[in-house]
Amino acid sequence: MPLTQRVVMNLRLAATCSTLVLPLLVAGPGAALADSQPMRMNNNITEQQVLTAQKGWCNGLLAISKAYATGGFAAAEATASKILDLAYGYQYGAVAFKPTLTEQPQTFRSTKVGALAYFVGGNPSYPNDKGFAIKPWQTCAIRNQVIQLHGKLAMTMGNVDFTDSSGKVTTVDKTWAFVREPDGEVRIVLHHSSLPFTAK
Amino acid sequence: MPLTQRVVMNLRLAATCSTLVLPLLVAGPGAALADSQPMRMNNNITEQQVLTAQKGWCNGLLAISKAYATGGFAAAEATASKILDLAYGYQYGAVAFKPTLTEQPQTFRSTKVGALAYFVGGNPSYPNDKGFAIKPWQTCAIRNQVIQLHGKLAMTMGNVDFTDSSGKVTTVDKTWAFVREPDGEVRIVLHHSSLPFTAK
Amino acid sequence: MPLTQRVVMNLRLAATCSTLVLPLLVAGPGAALADSQPMRMNNNITEQQVLTAQKGWCNGLLAISKAYATGGFAAAEATASKILDLAYGYQYGAVAFKPTLTEQPQTFRSTKVGALAYFVGGNPSYPNDKGFAIKPWQTCAIRNQVIQLHGKLAMTMGNVDFTDSSGKVTTVDKTWAFVREPDGEVRIVLHHSSLPFTAK
Amino acid sequence: MPLTQRVVMNLRLAATCSTLVLPLLVAGPGAALADSQPMRMNNNITEQQVLTAQKGWCNGLLAISKAYATGGFAAAEATASKILDLAYGYQYGAVAFKPTLTEQPQTFRSTKVGALAYFVGGNPSYPNDKGFAIKPWQTCAIRNQVIQLHGKLAMTMGNVDFTDSSGKVTTVDKTWAFVREPDGEVRIVLHHSSLPFTAK
Repeated sequence: MPLTQRVVMNLRLAATCSTLVLPLLVAGPGAALADSQPMRMNNNITEQQVLTAQKGWCNGLLAISKAYATGGFAAAEATASKILDLAYGYQYGAVAFKPTLTEQPQTFRSTKVGALAYFVGGNPSYPNDKGFAIKPWQTCAIRNQVIQLHGKLAMTMGNVDFTDSSGKVTTVDKTWAFVREPDGEVRIVLHHSSLPFTAK
Repeated sequence: MPLTQRVVMNLRLAATCSTLVLPLLVAGPGAALADSQPMRMNNNITEQQVLTAQKGWCNGLLAISKAYATGGFAAAEATASKILDLAYGYQYGAVAFKPTLTEQPQTFRSTKVGALAYFVGGNPSYPNDKGFAIKPWQTCAIRNQVIQLHGKLAMTMGNVDFTDSSGKVTTVDKTWAFVREPDGEVRIVLHHSSLPFTAK
Repeated sequence: MPLTQRVVMNLRLAATCSTLVLPLLVAGPGAALADSQPMRMNNNITEQQVLTAQKGWCNGLLAISKAYATGGFAAAEATASKILDLAYGYQYGAVAFKPTLTEQPQTFRSTKVGALAYFVGGNPSYPNDKGFAIKPWQTCAIRNQVIQLHGKLAMTMGNVDFTDSSGKVTTVDKTWAFVREPDGEVRIVLHHSSLPFTAK
Repeated sequence: MPLTQRVVMNLRLAATCSTLVLPLLVAGPGAALADSQPMRMNNNITEQQVLTAQKGWCNGLLAISKAYATGGFAAAEATASKILDLAYGYQYGAVAFKPTLTEQPQTFRSTKVGALAYFVGGNPSYPNDKGFAIKPWQTCAIRNQVIQLHGKLAMTMGNVDFTDSSGKVTTVDKTWAFVREPDGEVRIVLHHSSLPFTAK
């Protein structure tokens, strides 16, 4: 499906780190001469990479929504599965994921199976999941309150605003932790989303 | 105030790292002999340190509650201020803190002033803050769903159950990130708390 | 070449991290129940992984030596190239590599080209390189003095003893820094080797 | 002793991190408004902090040399002890330190006692130590070949040139690893120094 492929490629491009490439290219046999500039290795995640990964998450959500609108559940599930593989770190171990609309006793989705059920629904093991990502989302906008950089790991906290096809806006309080791999890929290892509190 | 001092000392003891002490003690001038065991440096945070820091947070909350019951607002505020200095990393920069019961546009408390207002109330700049920690809390119990260790930084996600003097239990979904300093202190740099979602 | 393949596979096996696999296997849809054990993510490098990577370096050196003895320069160079790709982090940026026997102004080998020249010689751009790894090494033994663990990065300092086919032992002072990738691979990002100092 | 105090203060100033201060100062109670800029926490070590810490090491060495010239062994030892406390991380655990001129079986100095003996001599437990830092050093210049940034830890490799009062230059191959603490202090946790190799 072209759309999925484009999203996947965009996500990959967004995650690519160009800062490491140049030193390798310019480093020939004579690069170690005493008076040369020092060469560098820096695999720390940058704020720009964090912002790009956040946009990648929004784009992924919109792609699942569009896949559902045009291809139905099967297309949405295939898209969501690819995006989960690209954007989350389930291959590293247990991802800390508290989606916005999950309920006890299935609040936390530390496996890909549970995350996929939340995004597209349709899994009888998760009967309360309606499929958050298959709603008719039109826009997804991020307003960061705090950005923290800790070497290869970054954390953000703030709001995300989702607008659906009727123009209704849903705002959530959102925390993410991202890890940058040596190859430049950036993956979510923690995700806590919640509806804003209001005293009644 | 004895109670405060005891809490502070308990927090300090809880955060002390004993694993680094032994190599230093056993290392005399002859320690570098070729056939000796390697000596070590390991400042990574351990799961035990994370669990201890979590209990320290609960103990701190109960101490603020007790200070309020016995000494009123001034005692609660003084206790809370000390506990914030000990348990949170506001001296490092912006802490990512989304308390359970804050409302827009003051949802996030990235400064100590804002965190203190949430815990004890009474700050006219934060008119909606009732003082979460001055409620008559009797117990505070943590149920972790995910624990992640990333060098000096650890993240946890799960539930915390608070029981008040009437026996009523309040459960929240809770995410913390802790950083371990070289001196063994463990501080919270991220804290996202939310009431569980329930479809009406 | 079977030997090379076996070495490469051994290096890969040695670097595989099994600790992350179990939580993923046992995590079915019901794993997020409130009373379950917490699930974990821990990509920190362990001391065992460091020791395994050190042995992998020794095995790689011996494999290059054996390839040279049995297949000549071409075989040694092909083996060395594969081992450099597996064991060093040149794809991350500039590796800090000060080999034992390099001379000014080509002391430092921060690119793979320079490292390969040191290990097998035969590169006219590095005329002083005799090929350290193509000597008839029989054993390679590591004696660690200090092991430091810093999250995904570990550093070691100590001695390495090389024994050649005549029984002569060469001892060097050796410092390594290793980085563990999320997929379990462990790579050298810093390597400082020097002949022991002796006052004449 | 004024000189020592000045050196100590310079080292402290050099290590101070100013990047964290501004966000805290500008963050008043209203800082969490939705349209505000995100606030930040970033305790990663910067290349500038690394270069400053390197210069601090050179300044420390020259200060020990000057203390010896003006105050004799006692002054040199007191200065060296202070500089070791400031510039090295012996309080964290075993420092990986291979000085330039140490010999088997006392090559490695993973404790402060051993490092102090190397810098000023005069310790009967280390009979071969002549006191590297009490030589009449006039200048100390660093030429970096590789700089690597790994979150709170940085590593450098290159040369250091020492010039003594007779104008004689001693060049060494030098590797350092520095750790930045949350309070901005930068400390050496690994140090491998060796005389350049020359084929005779």
